Amino acid sequence: MSNKIYFTPGPAQLFYTFEEHLKKALFHDIPSISHRSADFIKVVQETTESLRELLELPDGYNIYFLNSANEAWDRIVQNLVDNSSHHFANGAFSQKFYDFAREHRKSSTLTRVNDGAKFTEWNVPDGAELIGVTKNETSVGYSFLEEELENLRNRYPKKLIALDVVSATPSLPINFKNVDTAYFSTQKAFGMPSGLGVWIVNERCHEVALERAKLVSLGSYRALPNLKKFGDKYQTPETPNMLYIYILGRVVKDILQAGVQRMRNDTTYKAAILNQMIETHPYLDHFVESKEHRSKTTIVAKSSMSREILNFFQKKGLILGSGYGVHKENHIRIANFPTHSKESIEMLSDMMEKIK
Amino acid sequence: MSNKIYFTPGPAQLFYTFEEHLKKALFHDIPSISHRSADFIKVVQETTESLRELLELPDGYNIYFLNSANEAWDRIVQNLVDNSSHHFANGAFSQKFYDFAREHRKSSTLTRVNDGAKFTEWNVPDGAELIGVTKNETSVGYSFLEEELENLRNRYPKKLIALDVVSATPSLPINFKNVDTAYFSTQKAFGMPSGLGVWIVNERCHEVALERAKLVSLGSYRALPNLKKFGDKYQTPETPNMLYIYILGRVVKDILQAGVQRMRNDTTYKAAILNQMIETHPYLDHFVESKEHRSKTTIVAKSSMSREILNFFQKKGLILGSGYGVHKENHIRIANFPTHSKESIEMLSDMMEKIK
Repeated sequence: MSNKIYFTPGPAQLFYTFEEHLKKALFHDIPSISHRSADFIKVVQETTESLRELLELPDGYNIYFLNSANEAWDRIVQNLVDNSSHHFANGAFSQKFYDFAREHRKSSTLTRVNDGAKFTEWNVPDGAELIGVTKNETSVGYSFLEEELENLRNRYPKKLIALDVVSATPSLPINFKNVDTAYFSTQKAFGMPSGLGVWIVNERCHEVALERAKLVSLGSYRALPNLKKFGDKYQTPETPNMLYIYILGRVVKDILQAGVQRMRNDTTYKAAILNQMIETHPYLDHFVESKEHRSKTTIVAKSSMSREILNFFQKKGLILGSGYGVHKENHIRIANFPTHSKESIEMLSDMMEKIK
Repeated sequence: MSNKIYFTPGPAQLFYTFEEHLKKALFHDIPSISHRSADFIKVVQETTESLRELLELPDGYNIYFLNSANEAWDRIVQNLVDNSSHHFANGAFSQKFYDFAREHRKSSTLTRVNDGAKFTEWNVPDGAELIGVTKNETSVGYSFLEEELENLRNRYPKKLIALDVVSATPSLPINFKNVDTAYFSTQKAFGMPSGLGVWIVNERCHEVALERAKLVSLGSYRALPNLKKFGDKYQTPETPNMLYIYILGRVVKDILQAGVQRMRNDTTYKAAILNQMIETHPYLDHFVESKEHRSKTTIVAKSSMSREILNFFQKKGLILGSGYGVHKENHIRIANFPTHSKESIEMLSDMMEKIK
């Protein structure tokens, strides 16, 4: 890797042990061994079990490997939505899940508030079979609260809840009991290259999929009953991204070893430093108005100087994220992931002070 | 990498320059840069253009990046087949494409001959919109001939032809004018880790997809019109497997630099050595009876001693492939890919002589 530090919210800085595990993977010929071999089954099992421990998944929740969070949207709609899903959107990614459902010609509906604004209206149409919620809206740095999720669960106990945990997991604690399916790509908070997605699915989803499969197609190799058939044996239907599944397992073990609570405390500490810096900085302002909804993992500030600030840091080898989409020129985004040390965030914050 | 040599037909031996390019990719932070950056657009453009040159793609053929050949089957059915496709199958993978179409609830049909047997009947039902053909049936080492493909094209000029070129490309010359769409995963002949697929699509496919999109869903992010919208700008709809797209481009450039014709001559030479060895060996026999249909890239021999032979070589650090599926215990498969040197194939052949 170069000497740069990426504070971009994904693709992101690689996890600090990534290269070490990559070397080991190559030494053990992970990319060349058979994906049906006992050795690789062991890899899938270890990665799955480590993830289960890290995420504190309840019993009855399965883990499957996809290639991206985009694919998770695709597969969730294909497998679990007959006529309609409902989506809570206040940014580009939560909106996109809805767009995907519409592209699948579902009669899906949307609660859309302004980017980064708080949801105040919680009605979901009777016809919606699944509710799409985004734990951490990476595009604008908005976090859905655990109690909001729980309220939604209590209000609509019969509907499936799909939670986007991209750039939230593993930094933010999530009560997976309140959701039926969740998903993330690994190039954000896990510090992996892009090309691997993780899909978490509970028994209710499997039941829905089995029921639907009697009447309609759920796709092919990644139809849920097929993923389960192979997944129950720690296998995958196709030759998966073996190298990344191996490395992800190792990264997860490192996070467990260093202590999940410590990592989360550090996340809170680093977020506090960045938030305080924004509050006192003449050229920066929080974008998300509701303090409690500000993301700890994706710190987003609005600034009329964003281009200049990004350039200033880039010259020093620190790569901050620009705004997403329509906010490209007016926001800066700073990722606060497990691989970002307290020192690096303190340094970034100190340097930002110099721009005053 | 270890000191072993993998002659398995995929996952396979990594390309001999793989690690060098991997190091460069990490040095240039390929996994951390934005997938929307000018730098990454350049990566996609270079890989696409190098592939276009290597495969001698005619004008009007586009290249898109998927995650596996399994996904290509999925996306072809989703995008291009309304009611029915027809498949020529004489092994597990050609069969599987048909199975995928059926799982998508298409009224697809099948010309099925015994594993490794020659096709003699070429009728395709009127209702089939697309014909699925496998250039190199990796499971049994059977190659479809270029003249057979041309005959099919001439006989059914209005039907789309989908060619599976997994483990065929780039070793075998293919006239892509005879096909409308083709696809491969890169963990076979290209010597890459699994997790990247390449999908080649011509204008006729785009027209079919646009026409179908008026009435039905083609999926979401990987619906052909969407792939084209981004692909025309050397972008991808989602964050793709950036690292592997970069390395694939570099591997392709290495193959071009060393000379495509030379690589293909070497493929023929190495296949001849292995074939001759099989013919004179007391414990080995060709599985595919038709000499002209025997694959040059996946040499398959039947043997009642296959387990012993595999073990013999494994102890010496040479990993041969076992039979696929029902042939697991009765076949050995030897990959003959660009990364396998003439010397390594000669050594393998010499050692096989010692088992007599």
